[in-house]
Amino acid sequence: MRGPLCFNIMYIFRCGYRLSAVCPSSGRAVHTVKFQQRRTRPHQDQNFQRLCGSRQWSNNIEQQLKVVSDNRCFGGQQKVYEHYSAVLNFQMRFAVYVPENLERPAPVLYHLGGMLCSEQTFIQKSGFQRWAAHYGIIVVSPDVCPRVNLGVDNNTIEANGESYYVNAVKKPWSKNFQMYSYVNEELPSIIQENFNVNKDKQSIMGHSMGGHGALISALKNPGKFRSVSALAPVCNPSQSPGIQVILKCYFGDDLKTMEKWDSTCLVADYKGPELNILIHQGYNDVHKDDLGLENFISACKKAGIAASINIEEGYDHGFYFISTFIEQHYHHHAKFLCDS
Amino acid sequence: MRGPLCFNIMYIFRCGYRLSAVCPSSGRAVHTVKFQQRRTRPHQDQNFQRLCGSRQWSNNIEQQLKVVSDNRCFGGQQKVYEHYSAVLNFQMRFAVYVPENLERPAPVLYHLGGMLCSEQTFIQKSGFQRWAAHYGIIVVSPDVCPRVNLGVDNNTIEANGESYYVNAVKKPWSKNFQMYSYVNEELPSIIQENFNVNKDKQSIMGHSMGGHGALISALKNPGKFRSVSALAPVCNPSQSPGIQVILKCYFGDDLKTMEKWDSTCLVADYKGPELNILIHQGYNDVHKDDLGLENFISACKKAGIAASINIEEGYDHGFYFISTFIEQHYHHHAKFLCDS
Repeated sequence: MRGPLCFNIMYIFRCGYRLSAVCPSSGRAVHTVKFQQRRTRPHQDQNFQRLCGSRQWSNNIEQQLKVVSDNRCFGGQQKVYEHYSAVLNFQMRFAVYVPENLERPAPVLYHLGGMLCSEQTFIQKSGFQRWAAHYGIIVVSPDVCPRVNLGVDNNTIEANGESYYVNAVKKPWSKNFQMYSYVNEELPSIIQENFNVNKDKQSIMGHSMGGHGALISALKNPGKFRSVSALAPVCNPSQSPGIQVILKCYFGDDLKTMEKWDSTCLVADYKGPELNILIHQGYNDVHKDDLGLENFISACKKAGIAASINIEEGYDHGFYFISTFIEQHYHHHAKFLCDS
Repeated sequence: MRGPLCFNIMYIFRCGYRLSAVCPSSGRAVHTVKFQQRRTRPHQDQNFQRLCGSRQWSNNIEQQLKVVSDNRCFGGQQKVYEHYSAVLNFQMRFAVYVPENLERPAPVLYHLGGMLCSEQTFIQKSGFQRWAAHYGIIVVSPDVCPRVNLGVDNNTIEANGESYYVNAVKKPWSKNFQMYSYVNEELPSIIQENFNVNKDKQSIMGHSMGGHGALISALKNPGKFRSVSALAPVCNPSQSPGIQVILKCYFGDDLKTMEKWDSTCLVADYKGPELNILIHQGYNDVHKDDLGLENFISACKKAGIAASINIEEGYDHGFYFISTFIEQHYHHHAKFLCDS
């Protein structure tokens, strides 16, 4: 079956698979580049203001970014930067792809990586640059967590990059694991200060844990992103026993707190413009029980939120799946970010 | 300047750069799959016969390949296999991409990786599967060397994968480093026995050290490959002081022996059909002094061998360069491998 299915959720089924009616569904030399910060920007997020309020970073000083690498790719430049994050209290890396011949402020698409990834993974393995160059979109992809060493007991969470893009409240994580504020406030401010982006044209996407990050970012900031998309996203982490173990490290045992960072729970209270959601998941994804896509679809349906959901036969959770469908995600975002 | 330049070498210059007139030029579980060997195949290479003559491998027994990974990608399957190589006296891995819906024996394209690569690098970072799927070409990409441990003194060569796709004659390398025979005889035999390939439609390509491997394979086997292409290939290794250090490990100090494995030297004696050569090199390639492309172009010109040479402004030696131009290499090979 191809094409939309009714109710308020638009389903697109491919490859012959059909959902049931219940909706089951670093090497180069490092040199320093100083960018002039043009103005002090207001920061909407209260947590971000709390974290940055007493720091130099927000006081209109020069923003220092170190160029880690800079490679020509599809006519543009694939760059990686390193900087000190005031929100994360740590040195961070992020990647930026800048298409060539941008004549005016360009739309910007944020990509959030999954567990075990870094800022290198998406830029090396997805092939997105072909489409970013085609549409003239600047693409920003940060590392998935600060690479702080919190001791032997916590090594696995850090090594796996399991930030879940939340703001942790429990020690020792609360000092460095504030990825929600970093992704939604500090990083966009740095991008807007240092690159020729149109801040009114931004979208967000992600893979797996990063898909969760993209969805909660869009749901918690109505109107901020023109579109949101995700490949095999974690959709209902508060109901996954495996993910709860991590979230308890950040929030303690209170389920209500976890639900504030869960897209399936957040859709119920969403009041804002169309989210323009696109999701792909592999039918053979071994992690699908932890992803909770069916619950998300049910919640969207109940809340009257439209989403294009695609279950792809034979595909799994990895980067071969991502590289196959990345084109469709860029076509999707371009509809909302780019002039026709 | 765009378009061909005369003499016998066709140059295509892009991105505004102009050559001077002198041509300066997994994680998944491993399970065993047994393939039926349909027949004993003749092996043309004498060295290969010598190496395999006394072994079970050539005696029409079942060829055992272990599936290391198998992922859906662009509608086909990206697979990695492990097997015991009789030529290399070691366990080897190679990758095979099989497009979907192949209705008859498919053309096959061999890809040889560069230093520091493995069978994973090209399949993860180049994005070639889009074009292999588009044209219906089976693509085979082996690891760049056997992962044998030859002791502390030789660790660097093995760790860097510096096989150079030659048959070493000096100990300790001669026992395992017979990559020329592996790539030109044992591996093609395995592929022809176990996959639905058209053995009359095969081509070869490679990157850097693998570009050298592709060029010498085509030059030493007239008519075997319908086309050959290379990205930033090593073209004149016998004249590169850095590469000579490696080649001396394999051959000793005799320059004449090294020249038998050097494409710039081999073109002078080439007697065979059109090679259909396509080469891309980045103008900003930091290794270009070691690549010797200018010498290769001069030798081709002298020998009357046509080649399409593209120097791409701003590009370097890495995988962002490869992913940008891989499309052109598949268009090139498809002209000679695929029905229109």
